[in-house]
Amino acid sequence: MRCEVVAIGTELLLGQIVDTNSSWIGEQLAAHGIDHLRQTKVGDNQDRIVAVLREALERADAVIVCGGLGPTQDDITREAIAVVMGVELVRHDHVADVIRELFASRGRAMPENNLRQADVPAGATPIEQRTGTAPGLICPVGPDGRQVVYAVPGVPYEMREMLERAVLPDLARRAGVAVAIVSRTLRTWGASESRVAELLDPRITALDGPGNPTIAFLASGIEGIKVRVTARAPTEQAAQELLDAEEAEVRAILGDLVFSGADETMEAAVGGLLTARGQTLAVAESLSGGLVASRIVAVPGASAWFRGGVVAYASDVKAAVLGVPPGPVVSEAAARAMADGVRRVLGADVGLSTTGVAGPTDQDGEPPGTVWLGLALGDAVDAVRIQLPGDRDRVRQLSVISAMDRLRRRLLD
Amino acid sequence: MRCEVVAIGTELLLGQIVDTNSSWIGEQLAAHGIDHLRQTKVGDNQDRIVAVLREALERADAVIVCGGLGPTQDDITREAIAVVMGVELVRHDHVADVIRELFASRGRAMPENNLRQADVPAGATPIEQRTGTAPGLICPVGPDGRQVVYAVPGVPYEMREMLERAVLPDLARRAGVAVAIVSRTLRTWGASESRVAELLDPRITALDGPGNPTIAFLASGIEGIKVRVTARAPTEQAAQELLDAEEAEVRAILGDLVFSGADETMEAAVGGLLTARGQTLAVAESLSGGLVASRIVAVPGASAWFRGGVVAYASDVKAAVLGVPPGPVVSEAAARAMADGVRRVLGADVGLSTTGVAGPTDQDGEPPGTVWLGLALGDAVDAVRIQLPGDRDRVRQLSVISAMDRLRRRLLD
Repeated sequence: MRCEVVAIGTELLLGQIVDTNSSWIGEQLAAHGIDHLRQTKVGDNQDRIVAVLREALERADAVIVCGGLGPTQDDITREAIAVVMGVELVRHDHVADVIRELFASRGRAMPENNLRQADVPAGATPIEQRTGTAPGLICPVGPDGRQVVYAVPGVPYEMREMLERAVLPDLARRAGVAVAIVSRTLRTWGASESRVAELLDPRITALDGPGNPTIAFLASGIEGIKVRVTARAPTEQAAQELLDAEEAEVRAILGDLVFSGADETMEAAVGGLLTARGQTLAVAESLSGGLVASRIVAVPGASAWFRGGVVAYASDVKAAVLGVPPGPVVSEAAARAMADGVRRVLGADVGLSTTGVAGPTDQDGEPPGTVWLGLALGDAVDAVRIQLPGDRDRVRQLSVISAMDRLRRRLLD
Repeated sequence: MRCEVVAIGTELLLGQIVDTNSSWIGEQLAAHGIDHLRQTKVGDNQDRIVAVLREALERADAVIVCGGLGPTQDDITREAIAVVMGVELVRHDHVADVIRELFASRGRAMPENNLRQADVPAGATPIEQRTGTAPGLICPVGPDGRQVVYAVPGVPYEMREMLERAVLPDLARRAGVAVAIVSRTLRTWGASESRVAELLDPRITALDGPGNPTIAFLASGIEGIKVRVTARAPTEQAAQELLDAEEAEVRAILGDLVFSGADETMEAAVGGLLTARGQTLAVAESLSGGLVASRIVAVPGASAWFRGGVVAYASDVKAAVLGVPPGPVVSEAAARAMADGVRRVLGADVGLSTTGVAGPTDQDGEPPGTVWLGLALGDAVDAVRIQLPGDRDRVRQLSVISAMDRLRRRLLD
């Protein structure tokens, strides 16, 4: 079973939108063990779409087409597929009813052109639309219908939902591959991507390249290094068991570098530890300028453990609000006083602080990337110095996850 | 002149990396007025790369190939192009010297396989490598050399530098289009994308579709709605003059919706206004949780006008630190007290505040998206209520630019 992906839209060619859909679909196909050799982007032009589909069907058993299913005159994927199938479009009554009901339920008048979305090439099966107005399509192609063109909307969340619900299961069934595919993302911090690669290399080799389970990893900046384990099996339960066993292998290798086994952020992981201890946190930020706080409030339920923060950008704010003593502000003394000061001022159990040099020039005689992370927890008030790589933005971003990871490790002790 | 783009790399098909290069190249080709009808992604397989190139050359005059120029055995773009040209690879002595010098200048030993990057299809012209180790290639194809394949590295900043320096000028010369292309991005806030579209529609129609200059716009969330004007002319000066005239037209239409004519952030625009008045700013954030502050510190030189902020997430922090009176915290009174309190506590001239409901549930009887923006400037301390669309993250993001825009308009008065 060979598959190709075709993304439709002049706006993709013009670079107005980056085509993330094809990448995501490629990732899913790989996880499902389906060969996938080419992706094409083409504009909203019927002749060119037809040509791309015909060429793809000369090489592949299945083609996933993304985009061009909306209500406007530019949306011509349905027409192009009908040409390739050699059939007419037929108005599908049930699909039309669903579209009418969607508008009615939102209390909005339906422009008549929305019913174009109910036009289906004769012989194709619509994929029910659950999150948008456009249905997807499963279109058998060729004299014996052994090939297939799937059409899904270009809106990412509509595409993903339809691919997972209808397209991938259908593809897996046709390919005769195991239907149950599960994956899990572990996140790590504290070692470089190349070090994580080195640590995992023997295990990946033991799994024999693109075997089952598979292990893939990706450095994602402030999100940590993501290690994704994917397993395939005839049943969901068998796949989960494979996954559990492989997660245990990976955790044995990576140890406390792993901060989440559920693709959570570092902030969420720290929030879980604080909640378990019934403690609250306050942050004092100089270098990171509010980034730690803004990441924390994005965690659902953070109000249970997060009191707030002080962004002490000007040096005299550090002194006046947080009680930082006179002297250089990129220093152990400043980081400690900030952490201790913010938990006192905001009435929190734990205080965390960042102060350092984002760059591009030196500050207090320290080079860019020099960061002090302060931590006030119980009777202990201390700070460590780290050196971070990259430009201003990267130094700031890395200081956030580094500060939170330090707290995580302390809470684990 | 028709052009196609081919991105090479199995990691692109597997979705490990999102192909942003093709989008960027597409944008550049559109700006240069060069037709561009298809983009293809293919893995690191010589036969398949050769097939993709041959097919593209049946349709197009020029093909830009991105990726596969590195030193490893997976990097086979050079070999594939040589097959398409029907020539051998030849070691290019000068290119090899440059690679050796690059390693020597960094004090690193050069693995021998790096010299593969100096292998050039006979008849091709290398594009000097200035930011990485791999040169690009300009490869004439066909009996009379009227067609061309350009090869550039897949590393985005290497690709961009080489495209701008060598590929686009060469393409423009071959296409006989004007060589000088300049563009400028205006940013707006205060009207929806569809309203901006409606306002600009007569002007875009007057420019006759893909004319010269061109106007394109793109909603970019917290970055505002970007309106990009691009002009082509035989000389740089003539293009700049076209651009100046068109910017004046666009500004006359959009008025004070435009907050930057130089693609600056809203924070930078506000910083410019504060600097001109010699005033400083402090922010008090509940809903936005540090996002306003973190965006401000990303502005170069923000320390001249930004004092810092208080993230008052817990209600009693609002009271204890900022002096917010008892009562609902999603309210005019709270927003006013926060703005006034933070400028007092942090010793700033201007205080700005955000308080509201990010969702997903109601708070203080208010629905998600309800936001109060407070502003304390001189003797005036006030707040306005706005209603923002979207999920938690989007409500937060939009509250940031809305708050800063309010300050901008006040400073302009």
